[in-house]
Amino acid sequence: MAVDLSPIDENLLATISGLHGMPNGAFNIRRNGELVERHSSAFIEIATKEGVPGIDIKIKPGTRGETVYIPVIVTQAGVKDVVYNTFYVGEGSDVTIVAGCGIHNAAHEQSQHDGIHEFFIGKGARVKYTEAHYGEGPANGTRILNPVTKVHMAENSFCEMDLSQLEGVTSTKRETEADLAEGAKMIITEKLMTHDEQFAESNMLFQLNGDDSSVQVVSRSVAKDESRQVFSPLVVGNAACRGHVQCDSILIGNGKVKSVPAIEANCEDAILMHEAAIGKIAGDQIIKLQTLGLTEEEAEQEILDDFLS
Amino acid sequence: MAVDLSPIDENLLATISGLHGMPNGAFNIRRNGELVERHSSAFIEIATKEGVPGIDIKIKPGTRGETVYIPVIVTQAGVKDVVYNTFYVGEGSDVTIVAGCGIHNAAHEQSQHDGIHEFFIGKGARVKYTEAHYGEGPANGTRILNPVTKVHMAENSFCEMDLSQLEGVTSTKRETEADLAEGAKMIITEKLMTHDEQFAESNMLFQLNGDDSSVQVVSRSVAKDESRQVFSPLVVGNAACRGHVQCDSILIGNGKVKSVPAIEANCEDAILMHEAAIGKIAGDQIIKLQTLGLTEEEAEQEILDDFLS
Repeated sequence: MAVDLSPIDENLLATISGLHGMPNGAFNIRRNGELVERHSSAFIEIATKEGVPGIDIKIKPGTRGETVYIPVIVTQAGVKDVVYNTFYVGEGSDVTIVAGCGIHNAAHEQSQHDGIHEFFIGKGARVKYTEAHYGEGPANGTRILNPVTKVHMAENSFCEMDLSQLEGVTSTKRETEADLAEGAKMIITEKLMTHDEQFAESNMLFQLNGDDSSVQVVSRSVAKDESRQVFSPLVVGNAACRGHVQCDSILIGNGKVKSVPAIEANCEDAILMHEAAIGKIAGDQIIKLQTLGLTEEEAEQEILDDFLS
Repeated sequence: MAVDLSPIDENLLATISGLHGMPNGAFNIRRNGELVERHSSAFIEIATKEGVPGIDIKIKPGTRGETVYIPVIVTQAGVKDVVYNTFYVGEGSDVTIVAGCGIHNAAHEQSQHDGIHEFFIGKGARVKYTEAHYGEGPANGTRILNPVTKVHMAENSFCEMDLSQLEGVTSTKRETEADLAEGAKMIITEKLMTHDEQFAESNMLFQLNGDDSSVQVVSRSVAKDESRQVFSPLVVGNAACRGHVQCDSILIGNGKVKSVPAIEANCEDAILMHEAAIGKIAGDQIIKLQTLGLTEEEAEQEILDDFLS
């Protein structure tokens, strides 16, 4: 690898973005608030933002089959990194964007990364976006991740988002917003796991403004130990649209979850639905796996892995 | 009929409580903020409250098969009637309570009734409670009903509540709260219909504090014309309990509905679920009834009646 990455850096990058070495095509790797390496491609230009920290990712109309990687890692304790990234996805393009943040905090101080991501998705464009959050280090170090995601979807665009918090994040406050024009379609999946004394809050707002727009929200979470989670997704139907929200949470130990999915119909032709469930793993599921030779702990882990995969 | 009831009074009483003439057993009929007639029975004592307007309804332990009627009617414009009714339901009893409020407001002024009802349901007691709200009069008269319902359920008690707003209520803010001890079980159904420029807000809080307690919440609503509705039921599981919330709303014309059912699990052994849907009547349902000879309007009314029955 050309640039100076430590084994800790490489492990974080692999965990949050599946990267082993530098990727092909366009990418931007940020570490401890500074640029490590950047590449633009013929169709995707990455430029330093003016005025605030962050980058502009400009994807030309008609770009197809390219992947952009923009991972962030924090390995110094005491760092508070705030970054503003704006994505301009040209009309008719079809791209994959891989973001994510990994924090390795070996000290007992606080490390924080707040990524503010805004997307302008052009007419008929298709985006697949994945973002993984991960922390590691001693239990008394504090790792904070407060992502903000704003998505503006033009006519007939499509966006699939997979947002996940793998483990090790002490505290997170997640804000996600999207507005959808006519025929735009969004599928968003959020998967969170909290443990120890961790806290997670996720607020989402989807404005279905155009006829034939639709959003499907899937939220899955596992709250272990003494951790707490609060979910508040809201889908607003302002046109002849469809919205569906599904929130499922599993409690392990003293985990606590509050789930407040809201739907608001302001148009007679809006069809909105939500469903939510909170509970522990059913005993018979554990027993079934135990009869196949797994211990109780292995059976539990198997079920959780499947739930969050 | 012994007491002085006008045809308007009689019609309101029949609509909200199914009464035709004075009932048998215990009852209390209130009109324009004043007592019309009251009866206590051998097992059910109705007494005027001290300090605030209202009555105490004391049901002796072991009372079985009795029905108490406590309807309220308002026929004067400009009346604001606030009443505090407290129900003490003795251990092991099994009773039916019929409440309700009808407003006939022939003028263009405001008439308002706020009924604050509190229930202490003893161990093993069973209560069936129905409450209907209804208004009539010219569209520019204002009829306001703000009911507050608080229910305290002792071990192994059972309570079934049917709350409905039939029509003609300009504005309502409904507050419902219940706390359930071990083995207590509640089934609550709320049915609301709003039309014209009406507004309805319903907030509910259910605290499942005892093991094996359970609550089932069914909310059904129809929002017609320019009316608006907001629903916020919250079920909190603090023990090995079960909670289920189901909210379904139908939009007609420019009706608007926001539904925010929340579940909060503070115990690993709590099992909580909710589901909600908002939409208009499916076209194929209308067509099916039209093929049976109904007009479009008749078909729509048939479907709504069935939904709210």
